[in-house]
Amino acid sequence: MNESPVTGILLVEDNPKDLELTLRVLRKAGLAAATRVARDGAEALAYLADADSPAALPGRPIPRLILLDLKLPKADGHEVLAKIKGDARTRSIPVVILTSSREPRDIASSYQAGANSYIVKPVNYEQFAATLMLAAQYWLQLNESSRPEG
Amino acid sequence: MNESPVTGILLVEDNPKDLELTLRVLRKAGLAAATRVARDGAEALAYLADADSPAALPGRPIPRLILLDLKLPKADGHEVLAKIKGDARTRSIPVVILTSSREPRDIASSYQAGANSYIVKPVNYEQFAATLMLAAQYWLQLNESSRPEG
Repeated sequence: MNESPVTGILLVEDNPKDLELTLRVLRKAGLAAATRVARDGAEALAYLADADSPAALPGRPIPRLILLDLKLPKADGHEVLAKIKGDARTRSIPVVILTSSREPRDIASSYQAGANSYIVKPVNYEQFAATLMLAAQYWLQLNESSRPEG
Repeated sequence: MNESPVTGILLVEDNPKDLELTLRVLRKAGLAAATRVARDGAEALAYLADADSPAALPGRPIPRLILLDLKLPKADGHEVLAKIKGDARTRSIPVVILTSSREPRDIASSYQAGANSYIVKPVNYEQFAATLMLAAQYWLQLNESSRPEG
């Protein structure tokens, strides 16, 4: 129970500038070491492919939180979300959409596909940092994760 | 756009003591006026029954957040959750399970049924207040809601 394989953040982000900004905030919060990065949708799905068998995932803990951008190469965020939430093995992992889009269509389709939460990235760095810190605090400290059986 | 029908909290709680504690915290946060209370599962479902037609809901705004207890009379929390998430008209409303149960079975089944988040109520009042404040801040200020069409 003490060595839970459920830990940290899976950050799915392809934009190098956004990725650097996000990691800078997570570093300040002492969360960078517990963060894994996937730079496109296919990489995120490959990371999660064996999420039901933690023993098969050395160095790949099941994340307590997935921060998912929508505009991604290879498989876009909507496709990644649909796969995560369409599979009973990964459905319980909280997915927060973190995007610059405030298009009602993107928001609606994300919730319909089972996104746990939807956050629009503030353009201002200080606001972005505060937003990310609050989200990390909520999902890593307050929210109760479902742990895999066994 | 300024008079959005999506606002406030729907609190689904039958235990009078827990209800009073929760409302006390929300009152201090200035959120009591924007909170509606359902005292059992059937009442919660009746409140949401016409959630796709805000015009038909005088005094019944579509909540930005549902705080849902699991042990409820009439329809229990699992049943209420399944109905909300099984209906495309209400699926986009964030549902946070707020319960004293930390049973892995309750956590797993809540996520499988589409709960957005799962929070175990701290027994200590100060911790409970801090938990509720953080959750309200996250869901009411940071999270982007899906607004009904039209």
